[in-house]
Amino acid sequence: MRPIFAEVVTIGDEILYGQITDTNTQWMSTELDKLGIKTIRKSSVGDQEEKILQILEEAENRADIILLTGGLGPTKDDITKKTLCKYFNDELVINEDALLFVTEFFNKRGRPLTEINRQQALIPSRCTYLANKTGTAPGMWFEKVEGGAKGKIFVSMPGVPHEMKYLMANEVLPRLKKYFDTPVIYHKMIRTIGIGESLLAEKIEKWEDSLPPHIKLAYLPSFGQVRLRLTGVGENEEILKQEVQQEVDKVLPMIKSFVFGYDNDDLEIALGNQLKSQGKTVSVAESCTGGFISHLFTKVPGSSAYFMGGVVSYANSVKINVLGVKPETIEARGAVSEETVTQMAEGARALMKTDFAIATSGVAGPDGGTPEKPVGTLWIACAMEGKTIARKIQMSNQRDTNINYGSVVAMNLLRKMLNGDYES
Amino acid sequence: MRPIFAEVVTIGDEILYGQITDTNTQWMSTELDKLGIKTIRKSSVGDQEEKILQILEEAENRADIILLTGGLGPTKDDITKKTLCKYFNDELVINEDALLFVTEFFNKRGRPLTEINRQQALIPSRCTYLANKTGTAPGMWFEKVEGGAKGKIFVSMPGVPHEMKYLMANEVLPRLKKYFDTPVIYHKMIRTIGIGESLLAEKIEKWEDSLPPHIKLAYLPSFGQVRLRLTGVGENEEILKQEVQQEVDKVLPMIKSFVFGYDNDDLEIALGNQLKSQGKTVSVAESCTGGFISHLFTKVPGSSAYFMGGVVSYANSVKINVLGVKPETIEARGAVSEETVTQMAEGARALMKTDFAIATSGVAGPDGGTPEKPVGTLWIACAMEGKTIARKIQMSNQRDTNINYGSVVAMNLLRKMLNGDYES
Repeated sequence: MRPIFAEVVTIGDEILYGQITDTNTQWMSTELDKLGIKTIRKSSVGDQEEKILQILEEAENRADIILLTGGLGPTKDDITKKTLCKYFNDELVINEDALLFVTEFFNKRGRPLTEINRQQALIPSRCTYLANKTGTAPGMWFEKVEGGAKGKIFVSMPGVPHEMKYLMANEVLPRLKKYFDTPVIYHKMIRTIGIGESLLAEKIEKWEDSLPPHIKLAYLPSFGQVRLRLTGVGENEEILKQEVQQEVDKVLPMIKSFVFGYDNDDLEIALGNQLKSQGKTVSVAESCTGGFISHLFTKVPGSSAYFMGGVVSYANSVKINVLGVKPETIEARGAVSEETVTQMAEGARALMKTDFAIATSGVAGPDGGTPEKPVGTLWIACAMEGKTIARKIQMSNQRDTNINYGSVVAMNLLRKMLNGDYES
Repeated sequence: MRPIFAEVVTIGDEILYGQITDTNTQWMSTELDKLGIKTIRKSSVGDQEEKILQILEEAENRADIILLTGGLGPTKDDITKKTLCKYFNDELVINEDALLFVTEFFNKRGRPLTEINRQQALIPSRCTYLANKTGTAPGMWFEKVEGGAKGKIFVSMPGVPHEMKYLMANEVLPRLKKYFDTPVIYHKMIRTIGIGESLLAEKIEKWEDSLPPHIKLAYLPSFGQVRLRLTGVGENEEILKQEVQQEVDKVLPMIKSFVFGYDNDDLEIALGNQLKSQGKTVSVAESCTGGFISHLFTKVPGSSAYFMGGVVSYANSVKINVLGVKPETIEARGAVSEETVTQMAEGARALMKTDFAIATSGVAGPDGGTPEKPVGTLWIACAMEGKTIARKIQMSNQRDTNINYGSVVAMNLLRKMLNGDYES
C-alpha cells in the first residue's frame, strides 16, 4: 500500500506575522502520524483569497489530504469557506443541521440569533457538514474525486485550538481512517529520566536490533528525559497491542530504574500516581527553583490528595524562620550547600507533616556564581522518615533551563526514594 | 516603494512530524515585521533534497527574501547546504574563516578537530559566510541577481533557536536592512492589564483616529493583558522616536491606571522594578495558583532583591499551621473565602516580614466546585501595613487558564496598591 500524504495549512495574518503562536499544526501532524498518515508540508498563509487559492492548488498536487484551519467565523469574513466555494466552483447554501445548531447555541445562552450568526450556517453545497459542538464555526469535509481512483480530501476547521481538536478527534480522524482504509497503528511510549539518549541506546541496542520489522522505535529526548516510542503497524488491533506489549516487557528489565511512566504521563502525573498508590504525601522547600516544583505538582488535577504544600524560601531569613535552617549552617557552609539543603528538606517535612519532602538550593544565574559555586551549581535533597539524601548537580548559566531542569532532577530523586532506590 | 516580501522555511522531519515545537518562525516573522518586511508564507518541509529544491523554487517566485532554518550540522548530513549548492549550481569549498572558527571552537574545548567537524567549514563558493559564534554550523547568505534589478536573498541558518537568533540579530537583519534600504521603523509597545480590548479601544478611539498616517496602532491581546503597539515609519530615527513618544504621552492620561510597562517588560519585571524603586519587599501565600506566582517572580534575574519567599498552602493544615489562618474561619467560611484569603495574605506578610503580601485561594478545577463556589471562583488579596484588600473573580473551568490568569490578576492587585490605588 502506498503511503497517504497530508498537508496542513493555517490561514490567517496573526500566525503569519508572528502575533500568535501556532500550536495547532504540531498537534495535527502528531495525530495524523498515529494513523500512519505522513505530513509532507506545513504552510501558513495570509487572509487573502488569492493566497488561499494558490496554496489549495499547490497542496492538491502534492497531497491526498489537505487540512485547513482558520479564516472561519464572522470577524474573518469567513474567507476560507468563500474561497473553498470558488475553488470547487460551488455555492454557499444554508445547511439545515448547521442552522439548527447555531440557533440552539444562541438560544441556550439567551442571546438572539443575528444575521451574522445565521450566516455561519452557510456552507458550500457539496461539502459534508461536520458538527462543531465547541463553537459556532462548522467543520467542512470535501471529497474531490476525478476519474476512478480515491479522491483528494479537503477539510476546513476553525483555528481556535480546542475547536480544531474537537473536530479532528470526533469527526476528521475517524473519517480519514475509514476513507483511506489506513492500517491499524498502535503506539506505546516508554518514558525515561536520568539517562541520556546515547547511553540509553547502548543499553537497549540488542533488543532494538531484534525488533520485528512491523514494530519501529523512535527516541524523543527533552530536558533530562527521553521518550521511547514504539510504533506497531498491522491488521488486528488486539494482536498488535500484545506484540508491542511483549517488546515493552522485554526491554523493561534493561532500563527499569529509569522508567517513570508511559504514554502521556508526565513526571508530575506519574509521581502523583505513585504517591497516591503508596498512600504517601509530599511537601517542597524551594530556593533556586522558586516555586516551579510546587507548580508542577499542583497543575495536576486532584494533586491536593498527596501534595500538602511548599515553602519558597528565597531569602535566608525564610529558610531560618520558616523552615528552621540553622543560621550557623548558612554562615559556615552557605545557602547552596549539602547541609542547608538537607535542613530545608527536613524542615519542610516536619513543618508540613508529610512523608516526603523535596528541597532545592542553587545558583540559578545568569549571575551570582563564585569560583567554588559557579552559576548552575544545584543542591537537591529528599527527606523521608529516618533518611535524607542530598545530591549536587552542575547545570548551565541559563536561568530558565536551570529552573526547569533542576525541578525535574529534584523530582526524580523523590521517584527513586519511592522505589526504595537510595543509591543511584 | 513597493513592500518587501519574505518567506520563512523550516527544514527537518522533526518539526514536520510534530516531534518538536517550532518557535523559530514566530520570532523570525516578528523581527522581519519590525523592519517593515512582510512574511507572506511560512512552510515546513522534510529533510529530502527534492522537497527542499521544490520549496526553494516556489519561494523564489513569490518572495524577495527566503530564510531557511534547519538541515545543517553533521547528524542531518548537511542536507540544506548540499541542496543549496545544487540549486545555485555551485560547489562546496572550504571557507578559511569558517575553518579557523571551527578549529578554535574545538581547540578551546580541548577536543580534536574530526573530519566531520572540518566539513562544517565547507560552504558553497558563491555565498557569504556568516559567523555563528554560538555553535559550529555557519550561516550562509546568497544573493541571486538576474538582470539589473535588486536580486533575491536566500539565507540558511541552523535550526537551534539560540543560534538562529544570534545570526538573525547580528548578521541577517542588519544586512537585509542595508540591502533593501528599508525605511526607519520604530516600535513602542504600551502594556496594559485589567481592561478588555474593546473597552480599551473605546477609551482611546479619538486619539487613535487622530494618529498621523505614518504611525499605526495594533492591539495584541493575551491573558487579561492587551499590548498596544505603535509603529512609526519614517526616514530619521530620532525624529520618529520623538513623534511616537508624543503620541504615547497623549494617550497615557486616558489609560494610565491600566498601563504597567513598556516594550518587553512583562508584568513580573515591571512589578519588580516598581518594588525595587520604592525599596519594598513582597511575599506570597498561594493556594489554587500553587506556586505559579512565586515562579513568575523568581524567574526574573535579581528578584531576590525584593521577593522574600512564598508559602504554597495547598492543604488547610498548612494554611493554619504555617500561615496562621484560624481553623474556625476555614470551618465557618471555607478555604475559598474573603476571610481566609485575607488571613493568608496577612499571615504571609507577618511570617516573611515583607512590606506587601499577595494571597490566592480558589477552585482551580476542572472539578471540586459547589453551587455557591463554582469551579473558577477565585479570591485574591494583597496586604500592606494597616490595609488588606480582597477581591473575588469568576474564571472558567480550565485549570491551566485559571492558574495563569489568577496569578496575573493577583499580581495586578499588588501593582495597584503600589500605585496607591485602593479603589479600582
